[in-house]
Amino acid sequence: MIKNKFILPTNSLYFCGHSLGPIPTTAYAQANNVLKQHAHSGVKSWNDHDWINLPKFTAAKIAPLIGAKSHEVAVSDSTSVNLYKALKCALYMNKDRKMILSTQDIFPADLYIASGITLFDKSYQIKTVSIENLTSHLNNDIAALILSHVNYRDASVLDMVNITQKAHQKGILTIWDLSHSVGILPIDLTSANIDFAIGCTYKYLNGGPGSPAFIYVNEKHLSQAKSPICGWMGHQNPFEFSITYQSTGINHFMGGTPSILSLAALNGALEIYKDLNIQALHQQTQQHSEYLISSLENVGLDVITPKISGLRGGHVAFLYPEAYALSRALLANHIIVDYRKPNLIRMCINPLYLDLNHIYQAVLILEKIITNKTYQRPEYQHIQKVT
Amino acid sequence: MIKNKFILPTNSLYFCGHSLGPIPTTAYAQANNVLKQHAHSGVKSWNDHDWINLPKFTAAKIAPLIGAKSHEVAVSDSTSVNLYKALKCALYMNKDRKMILSTQDIFPADLYIASGITLFDKSYQIKTVSIENLTSHLNNDIAALILSHVNYRDASVLDMVNITQKAHQKGILTIWDLSHSVGILPIDLTSANIDFAIGCTYKYLNGGPGSPAFIYVNEKHLSQAKSPICGWMGHQNPFEFSITYQSTGINHFMGGTPSILSLAALNGALEIYKDLNIQALHQQTQQHSEYLISSLENVGLDVITPKISGLRGGHVAFLYPEAYALSRALLANHIIVDYRKPNLIRMCINPLYLDLNHIYQAVLILEKIITNKTYQRPEYQHIQKVT
Repeated sequence: MIKNKFILPTNSLYFCGHSLGPIPTTAYAQANNVLKQHAHSGVKSWNDHDWINLPKFTAAKIAPLIGAKSHEVAVSDSTSVNLYKALKCALYMNKDRKMILSTQDIFPADLYIASGITLFDKSYQIKTVSIENLTSHLNNDIAALILSHVNYRDASVLDMVNITQKAHQKGILTIWDLSHSVGILPIDLTSANIDFAIGCTYKYLNGGPGSPAFIYVNEKHLSQAKSPICGWMGHQNPFEFSITYQSTGINHFMGGTPSILSLAALNGALEIYKDLNIQALHQQTQQHSEYLISSLENVGLDVITPKISGLRGGHVAFLYPEAYALSRALLANHIIVDYRKPNLIRMCINPLYLDLNHIYQAVLILEKIITNKTYQRPEYQHIQKVT
Repeated sequence: MIKNKFILPTNSLYFCGHSLGPIPTTAYAQANNVLKQHAHSGVKSWNDHDWINLPKFTAAKIAPLIGAKSHEVAVSDSTSVNLYKALKCALYMNKDRKMILSTQDIFPADLYIASGITLFDKSYQIKTVSIENLTSHLNNDIAALILSHVNYRDASVLDMVNITQKAHQKGILTIWDLSHSVGILPIDLTSANIDFAIGCTYKYLNGGPGSPAFIYVNEKHLSQAKSPICGWMGHQNPFEFSITYQSTGINHFMGGTPSILSLAALNGALEIYKDLNIQALHQQTQQHSEYLISSLENVGLDVITPKISGLRGGHVAFLYPEAYALSRALLANHIIVDYRKPNLIRMCINPLYLDLNHIYQAVLILEKIITNKTYQRPEYQHIQKVT
């Protein structure tokens, strides 16, 4: 455990790293540095402090975490914008096909992006199916398949290798959303031979609220893959101010001017992974979640996260009839969890800053709240704004 | 002058606010606050510190600076991504037309975005014409006209009212890039009846490197205008996690999760404009630039910025055969200017942090460098990376 590498909310147990990771000290320091650089050097910082290369530095740090090469990864924009780029690119590469396939339980924001395609081009259609029936729906009409590696509700993991292989047999291009797996699960995009991936950096990668997302394009596609959003950052000679856009490879996906403050925080946060064995982290996560699952079941809770080690991501989810009120009572007791409608509570057990003793303490408090029905107090019943 | 509201590079005269504004103390403080909030409250900050509403707070502050209503402005993504959204929307609204018109001297990044449209749909064409011939090229084949309010090289201002009116007579939708005018020129999008605008917030608005951009959609279009990138931030009930995208008005243009650190810095920076009369700032800018222009001409320099007050933006540009070396020598003397190929130097004379005495000092040093040919020293001759 490298808990002292994070600044954690005071007197709290932080179980929300699947939503927003806590701030690493190195992220705090590097963001603060950018403020100082801006103050002391102004625009000269683009050169003097190498702001211009921050997107490439961060991409090179993310690549090994997803089994990719640096020249296959760009850090830019939001996850939504990157999914849009990947999807438009896949549809263009597979232009004779008009169907986008996804699953009913994918993170809804991914479907929203797909809906933007059909909104602007009525010839496209989106089909969503259950995970169970997914492979039977793979056919030659489908241009692109969008999947989430780890389910945002129950943390179940999809078999990336097998599904991608079956999709490829039907000529379908695959786009994987790694938002809920990057940084906590070992990922090998190269072995899985996937086509595109996108992911968020403020969950397990702890890049800070709204830190820039990443996009991966398999090198076998890089000669023909183009982004619809031709951002100047990817121009091969941006400071020539040529009126013609010229860009090659992954640079085509880089976008416009990135937020340097957020990139610096992300760059600092990724220091955590420098000497970290992701396989070891994964094993520890599985042990932690096993312990949490059995503790929750001992309290009589209905855990929906897969019980088989290796089939779950970095959080554990359980159902409870009065889940909203329970989550409020937990928060009031400094156990930071989150709630998803209508009856779900999620607890992220990232071993980077939580150990077994923390889990033990949290479940003890949880049990007390349930036993005493503390959550039924009026102050825990009001309507949430955001969780 | 409210110089003490900024932290300026030490012992320097900062003439680069047209590229990256210096950091306001309020921007520094609010970005720092977000780091602390993240550290102390983690994910709870979305509610507890109202991160979720930061895009709307900043949009409401930008609206009066461009003569817009709050419900016509969204703050999100980069200028490039916002131009892409506006252009796609305009093309969809004018779908029987296949021509995109712009000018040869527009900021090239805007043309790069337009090129993404033609890259993905060969039925579209881009035509660039000279400003002088612009109105004669307006015809019924043109779907959208993209223009920069202020030219990034010579700071000349286009007649927004007149051009928009002429474009509308031919059924053309107008998209104005306000990157080089917002915050320094009075802008009234409502009176000008323009259709779409986009703009950058890190130049005259001082939001910090890569701070989120804005997009304006005229309210008359809001019932039909849709963004191709349907981001969850604009969903009418994002925390319902419905699989259907539902959004109305300007919210459709909000995008995915924004960088909260950068938004906070921008929100702080916009405090500067709270009690500021933009008309008075503009007048002062014109006086300053008049003084700078005549001082530069007295030194024998070839100023290309329009001499007529009211026809220029917030910077002054001059040509010099060895402009690159001269810019390096100026930087070495703590006069922060920028250089554009092949022979241009730009000096921004923002009265918010520069007074007439600063301009006097800068020109004195400039004159000395030119007289002594200091810029011919070997250390000023090497090739630039970025300016």
